[in-house]
Amino acid sequence: SYVLKGRMKDLYENPAPAEASTDQRRGSLEILYKIPGFSQLHTATTEVVHQVKSRWEWILDKFKMDPDTFKPEKKFRLHSTYTREKKELFDVSDQFMLPSLRSRVVDFILNRKKFSNDPNDHFAFGIERLIEEKAYSAAYPLHDGDSRTPGNIRYKLARHWASLWKAVKYQPLDHIKEYFGVKIGLYFAWLGFYTHTLIFASVVGLFCFFYGLATLDNNIPSQEICDLSKSVTMCPVCDKFCDYWDLSETCLHSKVTYLFDNSSTVFFAIFMSFWAALFLELWKRYSAKITHRWDLTGFDAREEHPRPQYLAKLKDVQEKKYNPLTHKEEPRVPFWRMKFPNQMISYTTILLLILLVIALVVGVIIYRICVLSVLAIKASEEDSLITRNAQIFTTATAASLNLVCIMLFNRLYERAAYKLTEMELPRTQTDFEDSYTVKIYLLQFVNLYASIFYIGFIKGKMIGRPGKYNKIFGFRQEECAPGGCMLELTIQLAIIMVGKQAMGTCMEMIQPILMKWWNTMRLHAAYGSIKKKKDEKPQWLKDYTLNSFGPEGLFGEYLEMVLQYGFVTIFVAAFPLAPLFALLNNLFEMRLDAKKVLNLYRRPVAQRVRNIGVWYTIMDMVGKFSVITNAFIIAFTSDFIPQAVYYYYYSPKIYNYSTMTGYVNHTLSWFDVNDFMENKPDKPGVEYCRYFEYRSPPWADPKYKRTQVYWHVMAARLAFIVVFENIVALVVFLVQYCIPDMPRQLQDQIQAESYLTNEIIIDHELTR
Amino acid sequence: SYVLKGRMKDLYENPAPAEASTDQRRGSLEILYKIPGFSQLHTATTEVVHQVKSRWEWILDKFKMDPDTFKPEKKFRLHSTYTREKKELFDVSDQFMLPSLRSRVVDFILNRKKFSNDPNDHFAFGIERLIEEKAYSAAYPLHDGDSRTPGNIRYKLARHWASLWKAVKYQPLDHIKEYFGVKIGLYFAWLGFYTHTLIFASVVGLFCFFYGLATLDNNIPSQEICDLSKSVTMCPVCDKFCDYWDLSETCLHSKVTYLFDNSSTVFFAIFMSFWAALFLELWKRYSAKITHRWDLTGFDAREEHPRPQYLAKLKDVQEKKYNPLTHKEEPRVPFWRMKFPNQMISYTTILLLILLVIALVVGVIIYRICVLSVLAIKASEEDSLITRNAQIFTTATAASLNLVCIMLFNRLYERAAYKLTEMELPRTQTDFEDSYTVKIYLLQFVNLYASIFYIGFIKGKMIGRPGKYNKIFGFRQEECAPGGCMLELTIQLAIIMVGKQAMGTCMEMIQPILMKWWNTMRLHAAYGSIKKKKDEKPQWLKDYTLNSFGPEGLFGEYLEMVLQYGFVTIFVAAFPLAPLFALLNNLFEMRLDAKKVLNLYRRPVAQRVRNIGVWYTIMDMVGKFSVITNAFIIAFTSDFIPQAVYYYYYSPKIYNYSTMTGYVNHTLSWFDVNDFMENKPDKPGVEYCRYFEYRSPPWADPKYKRTQVYWHVMAARLAFIVVFENIVALVVFLVQYCIPDMPRQLQDQIQAESYLTNEIIIDHELTR
Repeated sequence: SYVLKGRMKDLYENPAPAEASTDQRRGSLEILYKIPGFSQLHTATTEVVHQVKSRWEWILDKFKMDPDTFKPEKKFRLHSTYTREKKELFDVSDQFMLPSLRSRVVDFILNRKKFSNDPNDHFAFGIERLIEEKAYSAAYPLHDGDSRTPGNIRYKLARHWASLWKAVKYQPLDHIKEYFGVKIGLYFAWLGFYTHTLIFASVVGLFCFFYGLATLDNNIPSQEICDLSKSVTMCPVCDKFCDYWDLSETCLHSKVTYLFDNSSTVFFAIFMSFWAALFLELWKRYSAKITHRWDLTGFDAREEHPRPQYLAKLKDVQEKKYNPLTHKEEPRVPFWRMKFPNQMISYTTILLLILLVIALVVGVIIYRICVLSVLAIKASEEDSLITRNAQIFTTATAASLNLVCIMLFNRLYERAAYKLTEMELPRTQTDFEDSYTVKIYLLQFVNLYASIFYIGFIKGKMIGRPGKYNKIFGFRQEECAPGGCMLELTIQLAIIMVGKQAMGTCMEMIQPILMKWWNTMRLHAAYGSIKKKKDEKPQWLKDYTLNSFGPEGLFGEYLEMVLQYGFVTIFVAAFPLAPLFALLNNLFEMRLDAKKVLNLYRRPVAQRVRNIGVWYTIMDMVGKFSVITNAFIIAFTSDFIPQAVYYYYYSPKIYNYSTMTGYVNHTLSWFDVNDFMENKPDKPGVEYCRYFEYRSPPWADPKYKRTQVYWHVMAARLAFIVVFENIVALVVFLVQYCIPDMPRQLQDQIQAESYLTNEIIIDHELTR
Repeated sequence: SYVLKGRMKDLYENPAPAEASTDQRRGSLEILYKIPGFSQLHTATTEVVHQVKSRWEWILDKFKMDPDTFKPEKKFRLHSTYTREKKELFDVSDQFMLPSLRSRVVDFILNRKKFSNDPNDHFAFGIERLIEEKAYSAAYPLHDGDSRTPGNIRYKLARHWASLWKAVKYQPLDHIKEYFGVKIGLYFAWLGFYTHTLIFASVVGLFCFFYGLATLDNNIPSQEICDLSKSVTMCPVCDKFCDYWDLSETCLHSKVTYLFDNSSTVFFAIFMSFWAALFLELWKRYSAKITHRWDLTGFDAREEHPRPQYLAKLKDVQEKKYNPLTHKEEPRVPFWRMKFPNQMISYTTILLLILLVIALVVGVIIYRICVLSVLAIKASEEDSLITRNAQIFTTATAASLNLVCIMLFNRLYERAAYKLTEMELPRTQTDFEDSYTVKIYLLQFVNLYASIFYIGFIKGKMIGRPGKYNKIFGFRQEECAPGGCMLELTIQLAIIMVGKQAMGTCMEMIQPILMKWWNTMRLHAAYGSIKKKKDEKPQWLKDYTLNSFGPEGLFGEYLEMVLQYGFVTIFVAAFPLAPLFALLNNLFEMRLDAKKVLNLYRRPVAQRVRNIGVWYTIMDMVGKFSVITNAFIIAFTSDFIPQAVYYYYYSPKIYNYSTMTGYVNHTLSWFDVNDFMENKPDKPGVEYCRYFEYRSPPWADPKYKRTQVYWHVMAARLAFIVVFENIVALVVFLVQYCIPDMPRQLQDQIQAESYLTNEIIIDHELTR
């Protein structure tokens, strides 16, 4: 009965609210006015506040929609479930049956209509079942006109909303909801809100980046590396082809690393953890406001039909279950013969696909090892731009390769997951969507982030030491460049994130255009005879060539955004510019999505939803996961902790002040080249080479053992993780606790409305 | 309108469900029957399963209620909001107006009735306001008879439920709910469920304790301590009075410690984290089932009235707010003059009280330091039982002192918190209860657990080293006994937990009995003339002498249980027997609570609630917090990590097997007694003394510096915390994700019911 929730008549007279007079306002500050000079001060302050406010509003107005184009909705009225007995309570004007309500009513009737006279076929109802059985080819509400001809809402939305020129303006959310229904309206509200909050993250991220730029010249470790006078011979980074190298070669590398890995990184990681928590909390409040404005409070999508595909699959099932409630026999999914094996196949296939992705990542790693070896040989022969920046070149090409593979796999995955979810026999559409969403997200997560995890947390971590490398299949593992793997991680992140977004946006636009063209072709081929001029075509024929907006219509859009959210939170410690790139992308994404739903898709049935569903849970999980990953990135991938330990414990004190001088030397251990067991690189004059580890020198006994500094730094790294995780978790909890899910005022209003509606209905019952 | 949700008629005929025949059942295993011998095997297996099942049912029957006393409720029917137009749809038999429904309807009317003709006094309604203004002295539903005279439900409940003899039986929940309403029914359901799940925790806890007992003789570290042949001179544990002592004195101590601090502790801590997560998850499922059976699905307590106390306080507020919905002016709480200062006072007072508790804890610590010093002097004079077990004696008396203080403070707190919450001007009863609950819980949390936190995480952690102790006000800090502070922590826990429960239960019973007696006296004094014989007294007069069951009636019960839940989870790593004590306490607590509400309180209005409210959130938080505390207890308080590091890295290998031999010696550092700066204890023949720290010996350079082992152990401790926290968090998340909040079957049923109710109503609308 939720279908017909109608607006009620305004039963009270409507006197204009009495404005509180200045005298009244002044009243509350009465005592303060007795202080001499307070009156002047108060007036002056009020003046300044007023000026700032009006300037701010002037700026905001630039971003607001034109109020003449999209008139604000009428003031709020009470709503209640419509019943015939109480029809005199409702406001049955022409505004009562809005287009979205009409499309919902028609959809409700079509979905409930029985089409068979057989009393035993309890499931012979619903237009979707008929479409499934190919009795009809489609059923969709019509667009209300051409988007290029003025005079309809579609044109208005196309011109003032779905246009890249309007990218920085607010969206006319109420009108979007009126045209497309709540589900799509909520998506754009969410996207707008997310983009909005990204502004703060971007500004702080940029600030951190500029802090790195500004303090670049004061960074002693990179200065020490660049200092050419001190030649430091390093041990070879790979077997056979690599030679001893000089630390000063990595001068530029260490400077760029500093841009992304300085003390502001820790601040930014903490900031982003709170940002993520605040984003979700504030979204809850914002969506509570929106859903109340759209009259969805208390809406509960419980009375859901089984999916037609589910019923179709069950048609030939013999086993029936007695339903004590309806006293009918319903087909029962045999657990051991259908449900269980199907689910097993589904889970194992998912596992297989995940293993496939991991295999792909390993493949890319092998590619990198090979290319690096080849480049090392080449470097001895010629000196080119590529060989000089071997590390960066390798990383960049590997990341691009990875990206292409990801794109190809994604296509395969989506199909597989859809089939698998179908196989699991979910009863309702919600079940289906939740299962499908989690599946796709899991796969995409591994697909997209696996290589990044490798670089961040595995690469160069357990490589052993010169003379005793930990080998895998006889290959030495890749080593990190000086300054940690941070730069590599940052490059990998930037390429995958920006590349993924650019490619995603293109694919997203091209595919529906191609589909529309294909549909038009097919229609012409089949019904060539009804060739009419474009303008004469009825709307239903025009819309038939568009793509169908299925129940999973918004899935791709949400997925893209939530994966982007992962970049913005999970790895933000390694790439503080991620929020900025996300912001720029989203400004355009929003309008491109708008163009797509408006021009390339059939108008969807106005579905009602109460929230963004399982995506919220996923974002919540990503937010929590990001605290862990950021803690580990700062503790193990970045150089922050070793530098801090050196600064406070081991650095030489000058006039009681600590300094970073000598840090690079401190992190390097000595190695006697005569201790190379195999693949000893020969270079005359080299007796000792250095490597990045805290181990005892060859002249100590025992030699090459981990020193006290190693364990001290390790304890500091782990202590940082413990402190970071627990404090962030505590503060996030406090934030969540202190910000109620629903604004106080809204809650009071809902309570008052509910109470009033009740009163009116009881009054009506009594007076009838 | 939720008040009148009524049972609908059974509109369908009721054929007996067709039992699936053996043939049909056999059908699904058809293929397997072709295997030779399968038929026999299948029959034999079925036989065994059947026997085990019937035996199990026979055992379960011992715990079940007598089905003749409490007849199971009629089978489930559809429910819907009752309206006059659709009255033919409802089952208006004598079972329609159950006592709880009747009391709710009367309460609803009394709370809505206007008592003033002044149209401007919008808040002149409700019996509670009249009671507040002393126009009436009380309003309550009547008990349905004497609990000692057969023939009424109260007697039946008193005899078969509220009796200690029935402690191990299941509770007749449906009948409790019918008599007291959902709110109290849900409390007893929750308590029963909690007690039930405690059984598993108790069994595993007992097992861990017995594991400690069984392996006591194999514990090498305590053997080494007890080994009298190796005399180890330890440095004095306090200044001036203390002397050097021999390690073997702590032999018994180390053995008892082992009982609670062995490798099974880690297992138990992990187990209890999952237990806590599972408990909450399963409670969600169980309560979903119960609330559905009690027809509360979809119930939403939104239409809540402001509290009478709130309205009374606002009576003299001049400022009015215009409510655009009702077009009425409502009194508005002036934010800056009332709301803000009141809230500030409230928060600062809470802070003050918390500081007071901490001061109390410090006081107890000082008491302990003093007593220990005195006992040390005494020990040199005479050798008594007390002086020999000085540490244990001090801990025990200090804990008892602490307990008494806690009990006294609790009284003060409760009053303060109530007043403070009143001052905050909460609008509705729910607001009030939530704010009050969190306040009380916070205070009680600090009050109860502060001293335990001190012993677990602060005591003996930063004491410095011999010759250079970290002093506070010139006093040396307390040291931990050998084997860590674990034993002290365990004793403190056991005393506070068991003592608190025993005292709580006594207070809980005595107070209402005294109140009842006091009320009776007062009534007699005031209306001495209406002295009638006991049997002639009308029920309303009998009930008037009982305690009033206010809206906070269950507060104390929930609080006690949730604080107990804290002992069972937060510190379980130090006291694996806590679940067992909790279980024993709860078995009696449940029946004593039952006695109390049945005999000592007026019958409460049958309130409807959907869940246990903010207590669930608190328990969820406690569960999460317990992961952190248990990780820290194992890492820092227990000896588990140092022993593990010694075992795997530093122990002498015998035939390639590690052994714990030499562990005690390994953990002790050397100290040259000539390095004592002050308070040098003189004892001839002592050149060196030992102390529990990883520091370099006096003959090394630099001396008394932390060794590599220290940092290694520290890294291991922190690594344990990181691994423990993250893995437990991950698994708990998976558990929560994999167990749906509502059983699949129930969800399907609710959907089907909702759909059917809708169908019936639409049919009814169409055919009318």
